[in-house]
Amino acid sequence: MTATLFVNASQVVTCSGPPRARRGVELLDAGILTAAAVAVEGGRIVAVAGAAELRRRFPGAEEVDCAHGVLTPGLVDSHTHAIFGKSRHEEQEMRAMGLDYMDIARRGGGIHASVRDLRDRSEDDLVALALPRLRRLAQYGATTVEVKSGYGLTVDDELKSLRAIQRLSLLLPLRLVPTFLGAHEIPQEARAYPAGRADYLSLIVKEMIPRVVEGGLARFADVFCGPGVLTIDESRAVLTAAREAGLRLKLHADELRPSGGAELAAALGATSADHLAAISDNGIRALAASQTVATLLPGTMLFLGKDRQAPARALIDGGAAVALATDFNPGTSPTPNFPLILTLAVSQLHLSVSEALLAATVNGAAALDLAHETGQIAAGFSADLALFDIEDLRELPYWYGDRRCRATWVRGVPCAA
Amino acid sequence: MTATLFVNASQVVTCSGPPRARRGVELLDAGILTAAAVAVEGGRIVAVAGAAELRRRFPGAEEVDCAHGVLTPGLVDSHTHAIFGKSRHEEQEMRAMGLDYMDIARRGGGIHASVRDLRDRSEDDLVALALPRLRRLAQYGATTVEVKSGYGLTVDDELKSLRAIQRLSLLLPLRLVPTFLGAHEIPQEARAYPAGRADYLSLIVKEMIPRVVEGGLARFADVFCGPGVLTIDESRAVLTAAREAGLRLKLHADELRPSGGAELAAALGATSADHLAAISDNGIRALAASQTVATLLPGTMLFLGKDRQAPARALIDGGAAVALATDFNPGTSPTPNFPLILTLAVSQLHLSVSEALLAATVNGAAALDLAHETGQIAAGFSADLALFDIEDLRELPYWYGDRRCRATWVRGVPCAA
Repeated sequence: MTATLFVNASQVVTCSGPPRARRGVELLDAGILTAAAVAVEGGRIVAVAGAAELRRRFPGAEEVDCAHGVLTPGLVDSHTHAIFGKSRHEEQEMRAMGLDYMDIARRGGGIHASVRDLRDRSEDDLVALALPRLRRLAQYGATTVEVKSGYGLTVDDELKSLRAIQRLSLLLPLRLVPTFLGAHEIPQEARAYPAGRADYLSLIVKEMIPRVVEGGLARFADVFCGPGVLTIDESRAVLTAAREAGLRLKLHADELRPSGGAELAAALGATSADHLAAISDNGIRALAASQTVATLLPGTMLFLGKDRQAPARALIDGGAAVALATDFNPGTSPTPNFPLILTLAVSQLHLSVSEALLAATVNGAAALDLAHETGQIAAGFSADLALFDIEDLRELPYWYGDRRCRATWVRGVPCAA
Repeated sequence: MTATLFVNASQVVTCSGPPRARRGVELLDAGILTAAAVAVEGGRIVAVAGAAELRRRFPGAEEVDCAHGVLTPGLVDSHTHAIFGKSRHEEQEMRAMGLDYMDIARRGGGIHASVRDLRDRSEDDLVALALPRLRRLAQYGATTVEVKSGYGLTVDDELKSLRAIQRLSLLLPLRLVPTFLGAHEIPQEARAYPAGRADYLSLIVKEMIPRVVEGGLARFADVFCGPGVLTIDESRAVLTAAREAGLRLKLHADELRPSGGAELAAALGATSADHLAAISDNGIRALAASQTVATLLPGTMLFLGKDRQAPARALIDGGAAVALATDFNPGTSPTPNFPLILTLAVSQLHLSVSEALLAATVNGAAALDLAHETGQIAAGFSADLALFDIEDLRELPYWYGDRRCRATWVRGVPCAA
C-alpha cells in the first residue's frame, strides 16, 4: 500500500486534541501547524509530522503539493435538506416585500409547495436534482453531508427520498449521513380532518420508522418541534419511538420562539438540537449539562432577514458543544457555501475563527456521532481533507462569499471538481 | 465586421428603458425577456430581438450559446478600494471578540495599517496584488469596477496607487474607473502636530488634486466625511477644489452616524453619496430631490456585525436612485461576490430582485457617470454582459454565496476566467 503525503501547506489545521465535542471550545486554538505534512494510507491519516520525517518514514510515497494553501479537515455539514424538487426562489422576494409565512403559503409557497412537488417526482429525478447540489457543497469544502428526508410526508415518498440519498452515496465520494424527517410537518391532507394530525404521527411511528429501520435507510430520526408544527409531547412521542427502533435523534428546536425543544433534546439524549435562535436560558443550561450538540444555522436567519441570531457565545461560554451547518434547503437557506457560514459565525455570532472551524469539523462530526471517524487531521481518522487557497486560517471567513476551496479528499480520494 | 449573437438564454434581462438612474425604481421590472437574443458588433450591442430575426439581419454571425442561462448587463461595481497591500484578516476576529475600532488601531490595525503597508510597496507590487482580486470580482459578474486610491495619503503614494489602477486597466479587459481618495483619512504623521490636519488638507488641494488631474489619473474625487475623519466643512473644501479642477465627486457619507454627508453630496451635485447606513430623514429628502445616486454597501454592515442597514426602501420610495456595490476593501468588506450583495439587498434591505439588479447595473453605471455607456442591454450600449448559470433572474440572489457566473464580456470581449 503506497502512502500519500500532503506537503507544502502554509498551515495544517488539525482540529485534533482532546475531544472538544463534549465541552466548550472558547478561544481554543484549532491546532494550527505551520511546518507540518500529513501522511495518508489506505484512506486513513497515519501521521502528522514534518515533511522530512514523513519522507523518511514513507519512502516512495506519492506527494500532493498543497502549494502554500491551508489544509483543514473536510468540513462536516451536519444539517441539510438537500433532497427536494424545484427551487423556491420566488419566496425570497415575497418575504422582502413584507409577506409572512402564511401569505406565502396562501400563494402556493412554503414547505407544502416542496411536498406537493416532491411527491410528483420519481426517485431518479430526485437523484438527478440532488447530484449537482451535493457537488456544489463539496466544491466549497464539505466532505461529510447529512441529508434529511421530510418533503414526502407519506410512507412511499419518505422512503423514496431516503432511497435517493442511499443511491447518491454510491454516486458521489462524499460521506452522506441520511436522516429520516417524516415529522418535518403535518401534511396538508392530514390537517383536513380532525384526527388527521394524530393519524399522521401514528403513521410515522407504526409504519415509517419500522420501514426506515428495516431498510437501513437512516441513521437519525429528526423532528420539527415548534409552534404550528409538532408540540413538545408529539416530538417526544415520535423521537422515543425512533430511539426504541434503533435510530439516533436530532431535533429542530427553538428556531423562532422558545418552546422547550432544547430541553427535550437534552432529556432524550439526542445527538443534536438544531437552529436554537430562540433558545431560552433554561435550554442553554440543559444543553450545556448534556451530551447534545447545539447546531447553529446562521445562514438561515440571514436569508430570512431576521435580526436575531442564536446566542452562540452564551452556549459556548456555558459549556455546550456548538456545531455549524448550512441548513441547505429550498425555502430558507439555499447556500452551498459553508465557509460563508463561518463568516457569519465570526461576524454575527462572535465566535473566534478557531471556534468556528472546530464547530464545522470536529463538532459537526459529533453532531453526526462521527466524532471518532472524521473532522480531525490526526492519526486514525478518515483522510477527509479540504485544501483552501489562503495562507492563514483567518482568511477563510474573511474573504467572505468567495470560493477558496481548491480541492477536497474523502477517505483519501479526490472529491471536488 | 462580423456580428456575434448571444442566443438560447432562458432570460435576457435588459435593465433598459427610461433612465432609472434619476428616479425611484420601486418594483420596476428589470426588463425580463424570455425569447430574446442579443446582437453585438464592434463591441457594441446593436440589437435585441428574437434569434430568428437576428439571424436574418446578421447572416454569418458567430453565435454564443447561452445554454439556457440568464444573460444580464455586466454588473457595475461602483465602490471598491481594490488597491491595497496586505489583507487584514486578523481584525475580523478581534471585532468578534468585542474589540472596537480604537482597540484595533492600538494593536496596529485599522486603516493606518493599510497605509503603512502600502507606502512600503512598489507600484509593481500593487499591480500584482490587485490583479487576482479584480479577476475574482470579474468571476462573480462585474464588468465595470470603480477603484479608489486612499491608502497612500502622501503625494507620491496616492499617485502610485492611481498609476497602478491605470496599468491594471491595460492588463485586464475590465472597465476600471479610477477615483482619487486622498481624503480617505488624515495620516498619522499629520495628526502628530497641531496644524497637521490643515496642512494635509491643503496638500490634497494644492498638490495632489492638480497632479492627479494633470496626469489624467482619476475621473472622480472622493472624501470620507464622518466623525473622526473629515468634517462637513473640510469635505466641502476638498470636493469644491476637486470640482473646480475638473473631477466629478463622490462622498463616503453617514456610514455609522448621520453627519449631513448626504445633504452635502446633494448640495455639491456629487455623482454619488455612498454608505448611508445612518442617513437622516433630511438626507433622504436631499438625495431624493437631487441627481446624486445613493450607493449602498450592505456587505460592509454584515461583515462588521452591525444590526443597522441603510434605509434602502425609504430612499427608493422617496424617489432616490439607489445603487449597490461591494465596497471591496481589506478592512470592512473583503468580498468579490457581487451577487451576494444582491442577496443582502433583497433579504436585508427589502429590495425586489429587479430593483436589486437595476441597482447593480444601470444605477451603478449612473453612480459612475456611465449611464449611457454600460449597465443596459440595449442598442448603442457597450457589449458588457454577464451570463449566469440559472434559469430565472430570481435565482441570482437566491442561491446565496454560490458562484453562478459562467462568463462575462466587456466591449464584446470574453473576460472572466
